[in-house]
Amino acid sequence: MNITLKPTPEIILTGDRATGPLHLGHYVGSLKQRVFLQSQHEQTILVADMQGLTDNAHNPAKVSSNILNVVADYLAVGINTEQTTICLQSQLPALAELTMYYSNLVSIARLERNPTVKAEIQSKGFERAIPAGFLTYPISQAADITAFNATLIPVGDDQLPMLEQTNEIVRKINHLANKKVLNECRPLLSNAPRLPSTDGKNKMSKTMGNTINLGASEKEISAAVKAMYTDPNHLRVQDPGQVEGNIVFTYLDAFHSDKDYVEQLKSQYRRGGLGDGTTKKILEECLQSLLGPIRNKRAEYLNDKAQLMAILKQGSQAAKEKTEKTLFDVKAVFGLNIL
Amino acid sequence: MNITLKPTPEIILTGDRATGPLHLGHYVGSLKQRVFLQSQHEQTILVADMQGLTDNAHNPAKVSSNILNVVADYLAVGINTEQTTICLQSQLPALAELTMYYSNLVSIARLERNPTVKAEIQSKGFERAIPAGFLTYPISQAADITAFNATLIPVGDDQLPMLEQTNEIVRKINHLANKKVLNECRPLLSNAPRLPSTDGKNKMSKTMGNTINLGASEKEISAAVKAMYTDPNHLRVQDPGQVEGNIVFTYLDAFHSDKDYVEQLKSQYRRGGLGDGTTKKILEECLQSLLGPIRNKRAEYLNDKAQLMAILKQGSQAAKEKTEKTLFDVKAVFGLNIL
Repeated sequence: MNITLKPTPEIILTGDRATGPLHLGHYVGSLKQRVFLQSQHEQTILVADMQGLTDNAHNPAKVSSNILNVVADYLAVGINTEQTTICLQSQLPALAELTMYYSNLVSIARLERNPTVKAEIQSKGFERAIPAGFLTYPISQAADITAFNATLIPVGDDQLPMLEQTNEIVRKINHLANKKVLNECRPLLSNAPRLPSTDGKNKMSKTMGNTINLGASEKEISAAVKAMYTDPNHLRVQDPGQVEGNIVFTYLDAFHSDKDYVEQLKSQYRRGGLGDGTTKKILEECLQSLLGPIRNKRAEYLNDKAQLMAILKQGSQAAKEKTEKTLFDVKAVFGLNIL
Repeated sequence: MNITLKPTPEIILTGDRATGPLHLGHYVGSLKQRVFLQSQHEQTILVADMQGLTDNAHNPAKVSSNILNVVADYLAVGINTEQTTICLQSQLPALAELTMYYSNLVSIARLERNPTVKAEIQSKGFERAIPAGFLTYPISQAADITAFNATLIPVGDDQLPMLEQTNEIVRKINHLANKKVLNECRPLLSNAPRLPSTDGKNKMSKTMGNTINLGASEKEISAAVKAMYTDPNHLRVQDPGQVEGNIVFTYLDAFHSDKDYVEQLKSQYRRGGLGDGTTKKILEECLQSLLGPIRNKRAEYLNDKAQLMAILKQGSQAAKEKTEKTLFDVKAVFGLNIL
């Protein structure tokens, strides 16, 4: 007799900094997976507006203007509020309070050793002018994760140092309490490779114009695919072309549903006889049919901002109760529930 | 016609880290002044338990066990809850939230330049193992001060760098908002010189046993005065003695109500003919009569912990409303009151 066991549900926390609309990189890197995970696990998505401010405090509109966009992005790709709690970081005071308590357990030297933060400081040119909130954001992430008592965190490998930091804090709290108060968390590494930008060179960024947003118009999609980086040595259709590093093929791999067909195209391209115009046309059709319905749903949601706000408010209320429970437990460790 | 104008009431924030019972140093340095100020100004006293944890996270009982002691100290010296709001820092989530927002406006380099924090890091031997919460506590203090929109802060001169940091943050917020959202604050420098420890050498500290707590027993007061540092060269009663650096005289200056009498004693001591036994006896009588009623009231309050907790709860509730109003205003600057 075979019994099919349902996997034990995990508590999943995931989220995005609300610093811009989401794009295809988010779609393959995390959103698709979240839609899959929500049916089997207890999933919370945190719209991280406070974290978004850690390097945008002097341009806060970059964050505030994107909060509802990001929520619309979630709903448009199929995040279901019956299955997933969507909440707003700045609506959850317990996260700031936990950050304060945890800050006493992490040294400045430890924060400065975090390789991801180190790389970000370098790439942003902060050096010693780094805002305190930016250097300490791994503590704030630990607060987010533990506030929900999350057990499984979908991450790219650059985020592994954050989970290490989180688990260090968890162990310190549990050690101080002399019992298990908080869960350690495990990473759920995405099996999708990181989607490159359309120019094939730079990191995806709105200002570089090298992304395709989920809400991109038909024209924008068409223009982005036309400008996409291919094989610069593939000058004539009949010439053999290179598939590796050819962004059109990277995107076909990521988005085309017929994998065999993509393999055939690759062979033909390598042999010669397949032009970039044709591959781009195939990719454009694929992306138009993927993004068309998403764009429409997204626009519908954004047309009814009151509904989006209600969704975010309801999710945040549910999250508030959970996170305050954890805060209570952590304050108990420090003996501070005296009133 | 003479009109006596009342001074414009100031919003005063003051407080203590709850890391030990208060002692005579607090009495002359701040408590007496608070009792005076409360009748003319809007005064809030913050029991800073969260700040107490910034360098005691691994020994949290040092903080939690002292919260009610400190409240009893306040009430025993004459702080009147009709005139002064006594509140507990960890009961005010807005303080942690404001700290998070302000952290994005202050660089690590700026924090490391704070001369008081620098000196404390050195004296505590933290070096790079300094907890993040300790390096950033001036930001948390700025959150405390601005949350109440305080205009006047009673401080010792070692705390002036904290007010400078606070006003820098205030100016940044007001600049971002393009209008006045927060008040800058001014220091109210204590005119009482810092009371030395009874040993005349070390900083006052419970572990050094060189303080006289407000709740000290008759015997403890007597023993502390007997062990007090005087003039080590004043060996025989008839010898001339030195008043400067003689802790018995420093305490007589600070606590004896009859200043002329103290001056007479000083002359006699300088001339010779006044023994340390006599000066100590005079000081002991003075301190016994000062601390007797305080000790009794303190014990009464501590006998009714439920009442102390009710006082702290009520004060914290009033403070919560004020601080959340400020949080709302600051979140508005960052565009985050969308829900």
